[in-house]
Amino acid sequence: MEEVWKARRERVLGAMEAQGLEQMIVSDPKSVWYLTGVDVEPYERLFALYLRKEGSVLFLNRLFHVPNPPCEAVWMTDTDDGVGMIAARVDKTKPLGIDKEWPARFLLPLMAACPGMECRLASDCVDDARARKDEAERELMRMNSRLNDEVMRRTVAFLKEGMTEKEGEAFVLAQYKELGCEDVSFAPIVSFGANAADPHHMPDETRLKAGDCIVLDIGGKKQRYCSDMTRTYFCKEADPKYTAIHDLVRRANEAAEALVKPGVKLSELDAAARDLIAAEGYGEYFTHRLGHFIGQTDHEQGDVSSTSPLVAQEGMIFSIEPGVYLPGEFGVRVEDLVLVTAGGCEVLNQVDKHWSLIG
Amino acid sequence: MEEVWKARRERVLGAMEAQGLEQMIVSDPKSVWYLTGVDVEPYERLFALYLRKEGSVLFLNRLFHVPNPPCEAVWMTDTDDGVGMIAARVDKTKPLGIDKEWPARFLLPLMAACPGMECRLASDCVDDARARKDEAERELMRMNSRLNDEVMRRTVAFLKEGMTEKEGEAFVLAQYKELGCEDVSFAPIVSFGANAADPHHMPDETRLKAGDCIVLDIGGKKQRYCSDMTRTYFCKEADPKYTAIHDLVRRANEAAEALVKPGVKLSELDAAARDLIAAEGYGEYFTHRLGHFIGQTDHEQGDVSSTSPLVAQEGMIFSIEPGVYLPGEFGVRVEDLVLVTAGGCEVLNQVDKHWSLIG
Repeated sequence: MEEVWKARRERVLGAMEAQGLEQMIVSDPKSVWYLTGVDVEPYERLFALYLRKEGSVLFLNRLFHVPNPPCEAVWMTDTDDGVGMIAARVDKTKPLGIDKEWPARFLLPLMAACPGMECRLASDCVDDARARKDEAERELMRMNSRLNDEVMRRTVAFLKEGMTEKEGEAFVLAQYKELGCEDVSFAPIVSFGANAADPHHMPDETRLKAGDCIVLDIGGKKQRYCSDMTRTYFCKEADPKYTAIHDLVRRANEAAEALVKPGVKLSELDAAARDLIAAEGYGEYFTHRLGHFIGQTDHEQGDVSSTSPLVAQEGMIFSIEPGVYLPGEFGVRVEDLVLVTAGGCEVLNQVDKHWSLIG
Repeated sequence: MEEVWKARRERVLGAMEAQGLEQMIVSDPKSVWYLTGVDVEPYERLFALYLRKEGSVLFLNRLFHVPNPPCEAVWMTDTDDGVGMIAARVDKTKPLGIDKEWPARFLLPLMAACPGMECRLASDCVDDARARKDEAERELMRMNSRLNDEVMRRTVAFLKEGMTEKEGEAFVLAQYKELGCEDVSFAPIVSFGANAADPHHMPDETRLKAGDCIVLDIGGKKQRYCSDMTRTYFCKEADPKYTAIHDLVRRANEAAEALVKPGVKLSELDAAARDLIAAEGYGEYFTHRLGHFIGQTDHEQGDVSSTSPLVAQEGMIFSIEPGVYLPGEFGVRVEDLVLVTAGGCEVLNQVDKHWSLIG
């Protein structure tokens, strides 16, 4: 793997150079792992990779378990002035790239310790690299989505009228565990009826009843990588008004996916789905962006939205998830992950996305 | 509760005033909840309370479920320039307090939009308030530590020679769930033998064997508040060298706890425990601070360390957790939570902290 980390660092250093940056602080633990293989959960402690061409430096707490740092390591204890140790190493005469996740408690003291040095957000150098998955990453993403398909199918078979959302959630969690996932990608969403009108509703004691819509937005994490998919069903019967909206949302999902290929603007994908929904009068009820990038976390840097400046490139993986939410009534969302390929895209989820009656 | 939130806001505004601050951005969701009762998990989205005497403002995404904001609310969507909306409201002629958790992706653009405005870390105004628990919070912390005592007792009865650390971890997780906890405070640490020499070792497939030390560092979360306790045992038999170190660490724990009362410097507590351990020649193997504050998260702002500037005040709750770690051999840690009372302290954990043979 040593060559993989090195190749990734060179890719990021190249992107930095294109922005006139020779040095950068990378602090997101997932980015540091991506670039070095060093796997640390620092919690509130200082953890940073000082990335530069002339040999990078890892700033590590003695409490972190890093037996063989792959580059120079500066070790500190809880009582050391870690920011001061970074300030002593950076070149104060040149701009310093800053990780978008770096909290103010480190950034403001570093700026105070290096007056006049320009601090510039530079995470896109790392995030653009992370957005385009290499072959090993693609395989992990495919594997995770296959597991997610399996969990969705099991959950659909499990849910019955009278069950609570929390029972559905517990079942989902147990399936990921049984399938060997380390964790879920995010807290599973299991929403019945009017609860589904809140796209982020958390499972509660609401019981499933005939006629309810059922939104299942779920994902697991195995070998560090994430899955994420949404399907919407109905319990036993369905109001034709609602099934028509479901059909509309599914068609919006399919319309966007049909456009995915290298070179397409991601804002055009959002527009394709949104225009279709708006044409039927539901535009104001599609209250969020069409999708998000995904990889080591469920939401990685990168929007599929009306304002996204991004253009699809081979290797990118993002979600396509239009939805319509009628407050107090009902909600529907249909979400797949897609991998941009040379000629179009590979939809990573294979569970049928039409509505059906279950329970 | 409306008065509780208001009283907390006034307390924080008073602390800000003492620092010459009239305005502040609070972004830590737990601090925003503490000050407003608004409970949002924003993930990567912008979520901020602009706190000031003349009416505070909440910056909210339409995706957040906040039916009745307790103050003026500015709603945004994913495509709005949220930082610009904050920049339009702050007084650029006065210093702006900044939450220590605010990530660079918001802070740097805000600084660029408000050139010349001083941005100053000001979380201590909120954190100092959060550190001193009010009566309702104390009762929640006591309740959680009682549950934690129960989980520790159950785990001690459960562990047997031949079991893996992961089996111990699964048992611990199941107990919190059964006792109605929402979550754990942190990933449980169940370390056997030499693994315990890494204070943050994560449970793996290592099997418990006779003579191993067993470090159990566990905590649950119920009604938003956390518990955290460590006990160290031995499986079936114990090397006298190791039991002597255990006795030493326990005495260090007790020596520090005996000193806790309003007015004592927290660095003196650290020194009391550390000096005792150093006197026996193990000072270099006590590699971390004595303790940390705790409340809505396991590690809240506030150190019990040699460099802590803090002085104990009634209502503070923190951990006292000396440890000795012999690389490749063994580790021991003994941790309680203590609540500072008018006359001393209340130790929230009641499980016997002497070593014993189990399994």
